[in-house]
Amino acid sequence: MVGPGAAEPSATEPALEVGRRLAERGAVVVCGGLGGVMEAACRGASERGGTTLGLLPGVDRSEANPYLEVAVPTGLGEARNTLVVRAADAVIAVAGEFGTLSEIAFALKVGKPVVGIGTWELARGGEEVDAIRRASSAEEAVAQALELAER
Amino acid sequence: MVGPGAAEPSATEPALEVGRRLAERGAVVVCGGLGGVMEAACRGASERGGTTLGLLPGVDRSEANPYLEVAVPTGLGEARNTLVVRAADAVIAVAGEFGTLSEIAFALKVGKPVVGIGTWELARGGEEVDAIRRASSAEEAVAQALELAER
Amino acid sequence: MVGPGAAEPSATEPALEVGRRLAERGAVVVCGGLGGVMEAACRGASERGGTTLGLLPGVDRSEANPYLEVAVPTGLGEARNTLVVRAADAVIAVAGEFGTLSEIAFALKVGKPVVGIGTWELARGGEEVDAIRRASSAEEAVAQALELAER
Amino acid sequence: MVGPGAAEPSATEPALEVGRRLAERGAVVVCGGLGGVMEAACRGASERGGTTLGLLPGVDRSEANPYLEVAVPTGLGEARNTLVVRAADAVIAVAGEFGTLSEIAFALKVGKPVVGIGTWELARGGEEVDAIRRASSAEEAVAQALELAER
Repeated sequence: MVGPGAAEPSATEPALEVGRRLAERGAVVVCGGLGGVMEAACRGASERGGTTLGLLPGVDRSEANPYLEVAVPTGLGEARNTLVVRAADAVIAVAGEFGTLSEIAFALKVGKPVVGIGTWELARGGEEVDAIRRASSAEEAVAQALELAER
Repeated sequence: MVGPGAAEPSATEPALEVGRRLAERGAVVVCGGLGGVMEAACRGASERGGTTLGLLPGVDRSEANPYLEVAVPTGLGEARNTLVVRAADAVIAVAGEFGTLSEIAFALKVGKPVVGIGTWELARGGEEVDAIRRASSAEEAVAQALELAER
Repeated sequence: MVGPGAAEPSATEPALEVGRRLAERGAVVVCGGLGGVMEAACRGASERGGTTLGLLPGVDRSEANPYLEVAVPTGLGEARNTLVVRAADAVIAVAGEFGTLSEIAFALKVGKPVVGIGTWELARGGEEVDAIRRASSAEEAVAQALELAER
Repeated sequence: MVGPGAAEPSATEPALEVGRRLAERGAVVVCGGLGGVMEAACRGASERGGTTLGLLPGVDRSEANPYLEVAVPTGLGEARNTLVVRAADAVIAVAGEFGTLSEIAFALKVGKPVVGIGTWELARGGEEVDAIRRASSAEEAVAQALELAER
C-alpha cells in the first residue's frame, strides 16, 4: 500500500476502503507508516481487525500513525521505501507524489505487481508504458492485487 | 531478541522461555527471522499468542521460521541486523556468534539497553567494559529488558 | 549518472560522452557500477582522467565494470539505487528501465535535480509532470546538470 | 579503517600513520568519513597522495572531514557502518567505542579480516575469543591487513 503522506479526500477515501478490503481478505497491510494515504489504509484495516505494519523512515516510533499494529523505525530515511516494496507481495498505489513513484518503480524493477488508483502514468519516447495495472475502485484494486500476489 | 541462527539447546531453551515471557507481558518479539535462537524465541511467543516480527536478510519469505506473524524480506543482507536493533526498545542477546555481537554493539551505539544470557563479554585495555546487563535466566532477562525499555 | 545495465548504442554513446564531459569539468562520476550505460559513462570519464565511483548491489567487486576507480560493494541489492542518488549532486538519466526510473523518482523525492536524455516521461491524470529537465545531447545534459548542482 | 569520531592523540597518532602507510602501499582508505580516527587516517593518506573514501551517515557532505577525495552521504544513519565494512578488503580498528565494535563484529560476521591497535577485546564464557589480529604499531597493522586482504 503506497501513497503520499499528505493527501486529499480523493486519495484517502479509496485508501481507507483498500485497507478495509485487504483486512477482510486476511492480507497484511504494509506501508511507510506515516499519515495521509498510509494512515487511511491502516485505519481501514484496523477497523476490520487486520494486521498493519509500518516501516518508518526515522529512528523512533513517534512519527507512526495510530493504526499500526507493528511499527518499525528503520533509521534509513527515504531508502526505507525499498523495504516497503520488498515486504509486499503486491503493491497498490493510490494517488502519489515522487516517493510513491519511487516505490512503484522499485516494485516494477524487482518484479512485484503494481495496481494503481489515480496514480502515475509512464511513457518513454512518447509511447505509453503499460506496467501499472489500473483499477477504478478500491474493490477492483484489492481483487487485482490479491490475484496477482497469489501467482 | 538476538542470537545465532544455528544454536544448541543451551541457547534455544532460554530463548524459548524468553519468547513465552515476552508474549505474556504483551511485548512484540522482533528478530532476524531465521532459525536457532530466533526461531526458539518466536515459537515461545507464538505459544502464548504473542506477536512476532522477523526482519529477514534475503528477498523472499521462504527462509522465515514458521513462528513469524509478520515476515519482512529486507533484501539488505546482514545489514538488516541494524534494523532488528532499530525496531526494538530493548535487546535480549542469548548466546551468540559475530552477527549477535554486531547487534549488541549497534544497540549500545544507538543507546538501546542490552540484556545478555550467556553472551559476549567485552573489554578494552584489559579492563572489562560493563555495557551489557547480565541475566542468569529468561525470567530475569525479560524483567530487566522490559524495565529498561520503559524508561 | 543513472541508466540501464544492458543498453544499446543509442544509449551508450551519449553516456560515454556524458562521462567524458563530466571528467573534463572536474566532476566525479557516481553510478551503480555495472555495465551498459554505467560502464559507458565510467569509460568516458576514465579516458579523460576523471574519478569514477561505483556503488555495487552485491557483496564483491567482481561485478564491477573495469572503469571504476573506487568500487563499493554495498550488499544492499537494488536498495543501493538510493545511495547512488544520495551520493550525487545532480542526476543525469540516459535511457532507462525501471531501475533508472526508481533513481529518477528517488532523486525528485529528495530534491536532487534530474536531467534526462531519452528517458522516462511522467504524467498524472493525463497531465504531463515536467520534473525532469530534458537535454538533447550529452553536452547540454552536462551543462544543465553542473549548473543545477551548483545552486 | 574504523575508529571513533572523537579521539585522543593516543588513537589519532597511529591512525595518521596507518593512513600514510596504506597510501604508500597503494591501498584506498575507506572510512565513515567523520572526524577523530577517521579524519586522522584520511589526513595521513592524503599527505601521501592516496585515495580516500568516506561513507557518511547523513544526507549531505557538510559533515565530511576535509581529507576525503570521495564523500558519499548515505542517509542510512549508523547503518552505514555495514557499508564501510563491505567496501573494505580488510579492516584496521584503532581504539574504538561501540560504533567501532559494531564494525569489527560485522566484519568478522561477513568474513573480512580485522587487525586491531588498542581496540576491543572479546570473550565468551570467560574464554578469550581471538578473532581480532593484534598489532602494536601502525606499520605492523598495515603489513598484516594488506597481507590478509590479498589472500
